[in-house]
Amino acid sequence: MIQITIIGSGNVAQHLIKAFSASKFIEIKQAFSRKKEALLHLLDATKIVTSFDDLETADLYIISVSDNAILEVSSLLPFNNQLVVHTSGTSSIELLDSKNRRGVFYPLQTFSKNKKVDFSVIPFCLEAENTADYKVLETAAKSISTAVYSINSEQRKALHVAAVFVNNFTNHLYQIGQEICEENQVSFDILKPLILETADKIKTLNPVDAQTGPAKRHDSITTDAHLAFIQNENQKNIYKILTQSIQDNGKKL
Amino acid sequence: MIQITIIGSGNVAQHLIKAFSASKFIEIKQAFSRKKEALLHLLDATKIVTSFDDLETADLYIISVSDNAILEVSSLLPFNNQLVVHTSGTSSIELLDSKNRRGVFYPLQTFSKNKKVDFSVIPFCLEAENTADYKVLETAAKSISTAVYSINSEQRKALHVAAVFVNNFTNHLYQIGQEICEENQVSFDILKPLILETADKIKTLNPVDAQTGPAKRHDSITTDAHLAFIQNENQKNIYKILTQSIQDNGKKL
Repeated sequence: MIQITIIGSGNVAQHLIKAFSASKFIEIKQAFSRKKEALLHLLDATKIVTSFDDLETADLYIISVSDNAILEVSSLLPFNNQLVVHTSGTSSIELLDSKNRRGVFYPLQTFSKNKKVDFSVIPFCLEAENTADYKVLETAAKSISTAVYSINSEQRKALHVAAVFVNNFTNHLYQIGQEICEENQVSFDILKPLILETADKIKTLNPVDAQTGPAKRHDSITTDAHLAFIQNENQKNIYKILTQSIQDNGKKL
Repeated sequence: MIQITIIGSGNVAQHLIKAFSASKFIEIKQAFSRKKEALLHLLDATKIVTSFDDLETADLYIISVSDNAILEVSSLLPFNNQLVVHTSGTSSIELLDSKNRRGVFYPLQTFSKNKKVDFSVIPFCLEAENTADYKVLETAAKSISTAVYSINSEQRKALHVAAVFVNNFTNHLYQIGQEICEENQVSFDILKPLILETADKIKTLNPVDAQTGPAKRHDSITTDAHLAFIQNENQKNIYKILTQSIQDNGKKL
């Protein structure tokens, strides 16, 4: 049984409390929140503390606060040589105050408040300063997810950049697709099955093998016709650079 | 009961034969294939013809061949004033020989040979030259799908451009994400749940409302760090232009 204390009451903190509470291998020892009410729907009032001085000993302290508060919170903790981790994809392990044994416990997913999260498929990227601490993080992560990875800070940086491409930028392309539809009185709904199928294909196909379309075929009649059709200069520019990148196979180093 | 003859034996033709065969409102009258064997696993040998001269009267002839063969095939048909359609997303209705009544019967999806297709959710984009013919196409499409749309040739052009953004370009961003992972010894599998969740969100959220990330937050510390991390000039360029587009909200007309 691992005793875990969660520090924070935001989106990720709440999802973690819910998931750990359902595991028989984990005991939520305490949770810290500036306001007790924020967590009363998830935990017994006796387990919620509003002052760092009320924190008791636990096997693992998970700081789940905004990136720019991690440094301050970790330095305010009134104890030493305990295992303390943050949940950030972008912050280094070194951001944590070195008075404690440090680690990272990063669930790579976008969390929406109103959408149920199936933690069992969410990848957890773990990092610790020594093997024993890593084992604790691994046991904790495996109690709620089947996808657990050892990822150092440099690899996590690469993952975050890659995530921007496949999540933020992809979503922006959806937005452009929607705008092109709306400007031409076509329902964006028509494209939704295609969007879902495009994503679904990564389960079984390498993206490079799944690539189709006029750019891939070097079908310049169609790509020229598309560029003539697009009026928005920004969209035209994105069309050109991505078409070129597909034709160079993304390799222009 | 609508009698349909399919002309062609490729991917889309075979999927249509399968789907129509399962509908009680449709009878596959005949199918044309240069080689009989191509369709023997789907149809009775007596229904497969290898010469246009053997085509009998049907309510609807669906030409499902490559774009550059549509014109020739439609002109080789040995009859006039019948309802003849193609299944192409990029070709105009006018590409069909005008000796017959023309239309378009376009299933908007990427078809992979080895992946089962659930036709019931695939959007069909229909066009015809008169209302009576449109009704025939609509009945045929509704017998196999719940998503049926009236789309003229200009709207279909817009749809195809939008599809390039949400399908071809999105898949290319997946490829870049994979490359960044592999260059840094990180498994691309870690990003797959994020990719699926990003796509899934369009079911309930507008893309513009679902947008997250450092570009959206105007978090230049993170975007600068990402640009410093990316070594590939092509990826750097794509990162810059898509970040700028998100910050301008794609509006630079």
